[in-house]
Amino acid sequence: MNYRDTRAGELTREDAGRTVQLAGWAARIRDQGGVMFVDLREATGVVQVVIDPASHSQAESLRREFCISVSGEVSLRPAGSENPDLPTGEVEVVVSELHILSASQALPFQLDERADVDELVRLRYRYLDMRRSRVAANLRARSVAVAAMRRVLTEAGFLDIETPTLIKSTPEGARDVLVPSRLQLGDFYALPQSPQLFKQLLMVGGFERYFQIARCYRDEDFRSDRQLEFSQLDIEGSFWGRDDVLATIEAVMVAVARDVRGVELATPFPRLTYQEALDRYGTDKPDLRFAMEIADLSDHFAATEFNAFASALESGGVIRGLNVGAAGLSRSGLDALVDDAKQAGAAGLVWMVVEDDGSLRSPVAKFLSADEQAALMEALAGTPGDHLLIVADRARIAAEVLGRFRTRFGSPEGHDELNFLWVVDFPVFEETPGGELVAAHHPFSAPVDVEDMATSPATAIAQAYDLVLNGSELGSGSVRIHDPDVQQKVFEILGISPDEAERRFGWFVEALRYGTPPHAGFAVGIARLVSILQGEPNIREVIAFPKTQTGVDPLTGSPSPVDDHQLAELGIALRPEVQAARDEAAGSGAD
Amino acid sequence: MNYRDTRAGELTREDAGRTVQLAGWAARIRDQGGVMFVDLREATGVVQVVIDPASHSQAESLRREFCISVSGEVSLRPAGSENPDLPTGEVEVVVSELHILSASQALPFQLDERADVDELVRLRYRYLDMRRSRVAANLRARSVAVAAMRRVLTEAGFLDIETPTLIKSTPEGARDVLVPSRLQLGDFYALPQSPQLFKQLLMVGGFERYFQIARCYRDEDFRSDRQLEFSQLDIEGSFWGRDDVLATIEAVMVAVARDVRGVELATPFPRLTYQEALDRYGTDKPDLRFAMEIADLSDHFAATEFNAFASALESGGVIRGLNVGAAGLSRSGLDALVDDAKQAGAAGLVWMVVEDDGSLRSPVAKFLSADEQAALMEALAGTPGDHLLIVADRARIAAEVLGRFRTRFGSPEGHDELNFLWVVDFPVFEETPGGELVAAHHPFSAPVDVEDMATSPATAIAQAYDLVLNGSELGSGSVRIHDPDVQQKVFEILGISPDEAERRFGWFVEALRYGTPPHAGFAVGIARLVSILQGEPNIREVIAFPKTQTGVDPLTGSPSPVDDHQLAELGIALRPEVQAARDEAAGSGAD
Repeated sequence: MNYRDTRAGELTREDAGRTVQLAGWAARIRDQGGVMFVDLREATGVVQVVIDPASHSQAESLRREFCISVSGEVSLRPAGSENPDLPTGEVEVVVSELHILSASQALPFQLDERADVDELVRLRYRYLDMRRSRVAANLRARSVAVAAMRRVLTEAGFLDIETPTLIKSTPEGARDVLVPSRLQLGDFYALPQSPQLFKQLLMVGGFERYFQIARCYRDEDFRSDRQLEFSQLDIEGSFWGRDDVLATIEAVMVAVARDVRGVELATPFPRLTYQEALDRYGTDKPDLRFAMEIADLSDHFAATEFNAFASALESGGVIRGLNVGAAGLSRSGLDALVDDAKQAGAAGLVWMVVEDDGSLRSPVAKFLSADEQAALMEALAGTPGDHLLIVADRARIAAEVLGRFRTRFGSPEGHDELNFLWVVDFPVFEETPGGELVAAHHPFSAPVDVEDMATSPATAIAQAYDLVLNGSELGSGSVRIHDPDVQQKVFEILGISPDEAERRFGWFVEALRYGTPPHAGFAVGIARLVSILQGEPNIREVIAFPKTQTGVDPLTGSPSPVDDHQLAELGIALRPEVQAARDEAAGSGAD
Repeated sequence: MNYRDTRAGELTREDAGRTVQLAGWAARIRDQGGVMFVDLREATGVVQVVIDPASHSQAESLRREFCISVSGEVSLRPAGSENPDLPTGEVEVVVSELHILSASQALPFQLDERADVDELVRLRYRYLDMRRSRVAANLRARSVAVAAMRRVLTEAGFLDIETPTLIKSTPEGARDVLVPSRLQLGDFYALPQSPQLFKQLLMVGGFERYFQIARCYRDEDFRSDRQLEFSQLDIEGSFWGRDDVLATIEAVMVAVARDVRGVELATPFPRLTYQEALDRYGTDKPDLRFAMEIADLSDHFAATEFNAFASALESGGVIRGLNVGAAGLSRSGLDALVDDAKQAGAAGLVWMVVEDDGSLRSPVAKFLSADEQAALMEALAGTPGDHLLIVADRARIAAEVLGRFRTRFGSPEGHDELNFLWVVDFPVFEETPGGELVAAHHPFSAPVDVEDMATSPATAIAQAYDLVLNGSELGSGSVRIHDPDVQQKVFEILGISPDEAERRFGWFVEALRYGTPPHAGFAVGIARLVSILQGEPNIREVIAFPKTQTGVDPLTGSPSPVDDHQLAELGIALRPEVQAARDEAAGSGAD
């Protein structure tokens, strides 16, 4: 059976007079005195079809979202009834044959309204949600984006190589997702957090340009923008360095932005060092669609008599300020900022409002000299109405607190600009609140200077870089360590004992001992990128079948219980307390 | 640091006189009286570089597979020392600067020899195995193949949509690979055996053309050509039927064969029905690179007095014969065939050898009339020396036994031809040895005739089809059921109770109730296809990091034990007997 010979969305006035066969869904049905007007929707678009119920016995049963096939003649719509909002709005198809291919029961929600459907309901009926233009457009954009990525890299000579997804568990960073092995009872695979070590092995193996759109897994407590599984564009190359990686990723982004958004990005993307980014914007992923820079005021208060400032400077801290503009906050609104700053770890926050006469209104204004006030006004370019926020604290705290306020007060809404930015020169390590050193990126990034790393690990710089788009981290990469001795040194600084390093990474360090080429790479989160390109606040909107924040798929009901004999085959059992809790829940459910 | 400005494999005599910088590996080192000749190998090929050890202090330490960077002038090789086997064999590079980028310890096996390295050793050092031309060429071919697939489908308007890999366990066919959930303690995800139901939901959702290269998982007892995880090209479309699917897959295969092998495939591929394939070739995946057809001899023996034949016919069986040619088997070799046939389930096997005078030598010849012998000779086109094999049994047994002998005696070796074939009209169900009906393909394939399926399920034909290449099944597909009532009927025939159907597939059958379009699709195993294109007998050769038949990765040592606290977080524990066995093994290991 043929269902159609013409695509509904492509009909124009040029087609008038043609007899066509169309197939799709009855998106809207309007019965107007013995004539039915049906919006027939399919992947290419919508066209109006006109049905005379007297001639078509099936017409009476037709309801919204029935799947139909129609034949008929394309006609110009009567003058005055054209629909300029519809690409096919000048024509309609007068139906001579109608087939209902498939009926639909009543819908759980209306498909033609974007708003106001609870997300859980949308996910429960994702296959209906997909018929709405929003999800359809998002998944279409995602397909276009990955096609562009692959095209650019294939043309540049990269090989698309699949790495395994049932791998060895080498816990680092996030929790591994574990998979019990049936053939090796008691042993487990892990699903990969990234293809990191395998792509490095591909470099050892002599594949000099690799890419993959790789499925990765992280068992974290879900945040709104994380999923248990996600995909990343993963690249790696040998005999190249940072700038080669950056140029390659820029070429990919140019193609993606062109194909998805129709815009031409200017390259090279601007670069900031990690330190600059923190100092000027209070974050390692600044949104540069707006300026609002943090100013260092320490020098202006070097001789201050204001105790809070003086003692911060004495103990090696800084004084930094941010002009968030004329935000129009009340006294209580301003005081609430102080609480926010304290919650973020700061000892306090000083707020000042610039009065119409240029004077400063603030609980602490009286403690500052006229010179100090003038310097502050100048450094922060204060104008009447502006709110000035000042933190005197350790540099890291000052950056974090002011960075948050910058984002809160500065971020543009409904803003189409794409602001790409490289942040480079990340530290090798970062300190946990407990004072331990952990890998800032991952333990395979090369330090700029090995000696320096050994003597001053806490401040050593890595050849590591992030790509930031509109204030979101899109991805990160680094030049990798290709010297096995340097790799061992990093493990040592991280407090990984030689035994533990051998157990977790021995196979990898051994591989480095066979003539490993210098190499470097990058990974970009696909959903994050596409969600920003599509103006979607949540990555779930660009995933075909996402899970909720608790890892549940409301459509299929996964995860779900399995029979004990399946677990027995895998050599595992539920823990007694888990089994008991389930039995109890099942029991109370039966009451 | 720049490592190179020129690719080694691209140097020709035109480059003579140029100063170039190259990077790669020292594949061979020949020290000839104070001059070192090094084959520098990188991804594009090999070039000879000439090093004067007197001028380069590092030269002395240079060993095979060291990673190096050299600068030097391209020179024509002295007359008579050109290497015509090497694309760069007319030139060499006289090294003025040598940098050892990375040393290599002694290799566990020689990289320049293809044969004779144990596969376990190759997998243990896969990153070295990859430097050999065989694995390198295979993974390159695989990358080219998937790029061709994606290009053809993207140009044809298919959307690349990712489906989830942490899904609901709906046991069918192979065992699910299970993944314990941490956020829903006691529940499990499954890794997908295929994206089948999700791609059908995408059709319900209005995406009319979908493709994905999808990672799939099957926890079977490994056969030599199966892996726990594998990738398939997965497509699905709405408002189309079988022939549209076949044409699309043919276009994909044409592009793949062109890009990987440089050959033009003729289309359309030939088609056989399932029944024809079984009758004529004894298998549903016949290798048509050679003829050797099975002949039905039943009519010729309708009135036979030979008991074994007569009783087979009486009980509804068939008599079929195969001429396997002049195989030159001895009497004991021929008798061994009888044993093979019995092991395959046949009551027996009749062999006959055509003598030089045209008479038949066989233990049973004396029971056959002259007419019967003549008919048999004609039907099997016997010529002197030919071995004729005859089975009198149920049709299924006769097909299976003769199909195996056909493959054994007919399959060509080292044969470059690509013989694609469609096998269509598969049955909806097949009978297990126990007499149960199971889905021949999967329970979502549409029957040709719903009435017929309901009344005669055992013989009903499905709109299902396989693609066969050189006797291997590359993939399969079908027109799907889009009517929820037909879907329920299939579950019913399969003996899946309404309750069980609801629990396992309720969410899916519900989706079918919302105006599901007619749809059809296909899936192609990537590794199988590429292994045949590359002439590799085993799919492990076209997988970057394959596992052994027991699911072990000899490189990383996965699967591996994990800490009990990791299991505790997942609400599971090893079964006591598994734990005990491990403890005992660990204990005896410590002795």
